[in-house]
Amino acid sequence: MKKLLFVSALYLFTIASNMGAQTIKKQKPLVIEQQGSFAVGGSVITNPGTFDPITRTPEGQTFHGDHAYITYQIPVKARKLPLVFWHGIGQFSKTWETTPDGREGFQNIFLRRGFGVYLITQPRRGNAGRSTVPVTINPVPDEQEWFSTFRLGVWPDFFDGVQFDRSEKTLNQYFRQMTPNMGAFDTEVITDAIPGLFDKIGKGVLVTHSHSGGFGWLTAMDNPNVKAIASYEPGSGFVFPEGEVPDPIPGSSGALTANSVSMEDFMKLTKIPIIIYYGDFIPEKQIENPGIDGWRTRLEMARKWRDVVNKYGGDVTVVHLPEIGIKGNTHFPFSDLNNIEIADLLSEWLKEKRLD
Amino acid sequence: MKKLLFVSALYLFTIASNMGAQTIKKQKPLVIEQQGSFAVGGSVITNPGTFDPITRTPEGQTFHGDHAYITYQIPVKARKLPLVFWHGIGQFSKTWETTPDGREGFQNIFLRRGFGVYLITQPRRGNAGRSTVPVTINPVPDEQEWFSTFRLGVWPDFFDGVQFDRSEKTLNQYFRQMTPNMGAFDTEVITDAIPGLFDKIGKGVLVTHSHSGGFGWLTAMDNPNVKAIASYEPGSGFVFPEGEVPDPIPGSSGALTANSVSMEDFMKLTKIPIIIYYGDFIPEKQIENPGIDGWRTRLEMARKWRDVVNKYGGDVTVVHLPEIGIKGNTHFPFSDLNNIEIADLLSEWLKEKRLD
Repeated sequence: MKKLLFVSALYLFTIASNMGAQTIKKQKPLVIEQQGSFAVGGSVITNPGTFDPITRTPEGQTFHGDHAYITYQIPVKARKLPLVFWHGIGQFSKTWETTPDGREGFQNIFLRRGFGVYLITQPRRGNAGRSTVPVTINPVPDEQEWFSTFRLGVWPDFFDGVQFDRSEKTLNQYFRQMTPNMGAFDTEVITDAIPGLFDKIGKGVLVTHSHSGGFGWLTAMDNPNVKAIASYEPGSGFVFPEGEVPDPIPGSSGALTANSVSMEDFMKLTKIPIIIYYGDFIPEKQIENPGIDGWRTRLEMARKWRDVVNKYGGDVTVVHLPEIGIKGNTHFPFSDLNNIEIADLLSEWLKEKRLD
Repeated sequence: MKKLLFVSALYLFTIASNMGAQTIKKQKPLVIEQQGSFAVGGSVITNPGTFDPITRTPEGQTFHGDHAYITYQIPVKARKLPLVFWHGIGQFSKTWETTPDGREGFQNIFLRRGFGVYLITQPRRGNAGRSTVPVTINPVPDEQEWFSTFRLGVWPDFFDGVQFDRSEKTLNQYFRQMTPNMGAFDTEVITDAIPGLFDKIGKGVLVTHSHSGGFGWLTAMDNPNVKAIASYEPGSGFVFPEGEVPDPIPGSSGALTANSVSMEDFMKLTKIPIIIYYGDFIPEKQIENPGIDGWRTRLEMARKWRDVVNKYGGDVTVVHLPEIGIKGNTHFPFSDLNNIEIADLLSEWLKEKRLD
């Protein structure tokens, strides 16, 4: 029955590129047992003094901020473990929602496959924008840079065979998926909030992307309810045991460094299955383009990390998609034109690891 | 059958206050034909010069911003007109989602009643935070002020009989529903984006709250696809025909002024049914507390506005909930403890106006 679902999904995919969001209508309805949203984590600033309800000065008032904002949907007869999706840099929950060209993203795809779905928007981002630190944000045009860093191509040219719809309408939606960070990145603020989510919802599979890859390792070390991690193109933040941190990997975007954690914490990462995916257009040798070259160093670091985790009894798999014949993927494989095929890979891994 | 639904909903409501989000599980599943998200409207900054993919300086780069972010769900066998929900000041789509005490908000309630539901997050807010103007935001403690302005009570005391769960957990979620504005309020930016939503989705009923009340009148003047408006506690921005703008209404939070529009634009508001709701704890005479007194002036202005629109053949109803025996509502009636009763009022009005 699940197989049938895949087939119909693949059929839909083939016509999706012509018909966009319209094809969603052709699918079976989503049957949702419950859905909602909530804030998790965060801190409270409390001003000294006594609040005066007439003058309404800041004395004696509070400020709640630095929480994460979570939306969730649980389908009927949900599988045991929900999937918890965490966006990357400059992004928010939209990463997993409708794709830029109007097809279904991993949110809907995995709801259809019977998984509860939680979407994280991390502290100081988007709807979780109430930050406890001051911030100044300027609208600095930077999208042609992201075009390369996210591996669509080298502006204004798309890569040959890139799994991305080249229409202006799609690129417009794609660029509008970004929303600024509300204050300096503070790993502690972020990794304080998310483990609390797993206290609230219990056991689950964490699915990270890019910048959240590093946060994901820390979250799993912090909360045993993280039963597995699937990480799409993790960026910085690979954690090695003290004394085993590899040398920085030089690259055109600067050297990629790794972090050190205690062996006790590190060993927690050997207790859960972890899979890492990287897409296409990653050079084998250093190239001048810093945005694209950065992925060469991250893929290399991911392999070093896999080897150390597995040396200590872990179960880390690194999948470089072109090596298994899946070509054309960008930094966002889960929303690329072949995202059903990418979802099938994750479904097969979850099944193999008995996580579904 | 619809009546039955109301009854069961009311039954659930009575146990909700004891059991919180758990009661959601007891309800029938939501059967969703399609759901997704997209950006609408906005502008693009294009820097002069040529982009250099190696130095990645801002020259020749673009910045997409000032769009609105929309999420939507369409149930199976949806009613003809969807409901388009628009949050108020300092808020985002969360206004209509899970209530602070964990019950279902208008998003789920009206999905269950067969309406397509669109949730707006307006430009320069939350997930639509990519603003084309620079902004500096400081975390200024202000929540005890909102406690009065949103009419929960006068800090630290709740109003007697307020329809709000007094637990710390609920207040924590309530305060975390806020997220700052990313740059100065710019009515044009906001009212440029939202009419485009009605071009995309076609005819619908606009449901506004507080600050979006004024934007709602402008949106209806701008796009004939707005077939009706239900406005919860509209704040500033009432629009009168040139020459008929009433004098400012003095109040402890400053005088409330009204705006002037051409008779041609104003007449568009006489062509659609409009209902306005205000909750409880609004004083009849001026009081010292500016947050609370402001609602006295807005209710008075709403009645003046109703009279002028109706004088020109319009269909505006102003419902002051305590006058029809519904007591204890705050500035957020749709998420208050009696929000099923509040939803029933809207359902009855939609039925009466043949909008369902």
